[in-house]
Amino acid sequence: MAETSSTTKLIDFISYVDQLKSVIRKNGLHDGSRSENTAEHSWHAALSALLLVPYANESVDINKVTRMLLIHDLVEIEAGDTSVYDKDGVALQEQAEKHAAEIVFNKLPEDIANDLRQLWDEFETRQTPEAKFAKAIDRFLPLLSHYKNDGISWQSLDITANEVLDICSLIGDGSEVLWQQVQEMIDECVDKGILRAG
Amino acid sequence: MAETSSTTKLIDFISYVDQLKSVIRKNGLHDGSRSENTAEHSWHAALSALLLVPYANESVDINKVTRMLLIHDLVEIEAGDTSVYDKDGVALQEQAEKHAAEIVFNKLPEDIANDLRQLWDEFETRQTPEAKFAKAIDRFLPLLSHYKNDGISWQSLDITANEVLDICSLIGDGSEVLWQQVQEMIDECVDKGILRAG
Repeated sequence: MAETSSTTKLIDFISYVDQLKSVIRKNGLHDGSRSENTAEHSWHAALSALLLVPYANESVDINKVTRMLLIHDLVEIEAGDTSVYDKDGVALQEQAEKHAAEIVFNKLPEDIANDLRQLWDEFETRQTPEAKFAKAIDRFLPLLSHYKNDGISWQSLDITANEVLDICSLIGDGSEVLWQQVQEMIDECVDKGILRAG
Repeated sequence: MAETSSTTKLIDFISYVDQLKSVIRKNGLHDGSRSENTAEHSWHAALSALLLVPYANESVDINKVTRMLLIHDLVEIEAGDTSVYDKDGVALQEQAEKHAAEIVFNKLPEDIANDLRQLWDEFETRQTPEAKFAKAIDRFLPLLSHYKNDGISWQSLDITANEVLDICSLIGDGSEVLWQQVQEMIDECVDKGILRAG
């Protein structure tokens, strides 16, 4: 009976998180055809971490990184997505996401709720090698989409290269190799005229 | 220099797989608002496996299952998606996906290409506990979406309960607990009139 009840709770949760497919992010797909949603971003991040793990600064438990990236944005079901370039929004978002974490993870059976909440807190705090690398991947992917789709989402934000460098700098905490690539990509974006210098 | 070239190849691949977000599947989101795409389905599958692993029939390496589900549908970038209820289509699709696997995985550096191709072959062959459980999750999720959105995609297919049971029966190879749930859900769909008996 306990097992059945737990199964039902898990299946209800699996249906609940389907809503992440309807949370729309600020960046577009690489072909520029539409905005990305947070569920497909989470897949892209987990897969990218698997591929780029040789370039993590420190030795990481890649299975933990993958789990972290699969759940890192679940809070957006309740709190929505905020642009990293919206400084006032980011400050408010932090509180909103903590509140959302209470709602989201508490829908799960207690032991799993605790495990996933701890993993999410670890990601947010960015102190462990896994969290630093996961955050590097999370921050790298929107940059890659801007680079590929001629910065369509940058145009509406009127952003400059230094602001992008500033936002992306924490990639270096997780992967120096990736951070080097990112700096070259940002320079190229300026050269191509899709990102304003300064 | 070798490292830079490998990094570039990996980043190009990460951009290439962005196309999976534009592969449209036959089932809809749980709220029925639109069709699902294969990238967000892959995220949903990997996360669901993490949650439902206590109900796998055999002891499984969940990290392998997660990796498997993250890459299991990459071939659809080249081969597209086919309905499991389209019997002629499924036979043709098998060949198309094998051909696609050659194209997709060979875009990666050789060692990773071999690893991921092997993992994909294992998933397709469904002989190991990990592949059986991953396939159970992959088959369970569209059923759950039909159940939640009143079977909107079933209507256009004019499908019957026995056909759905037949397609879903391999869920039992990976998880008997899930298979029990699925049979109850199918009965409920018939009772609610969203799936034809017989």
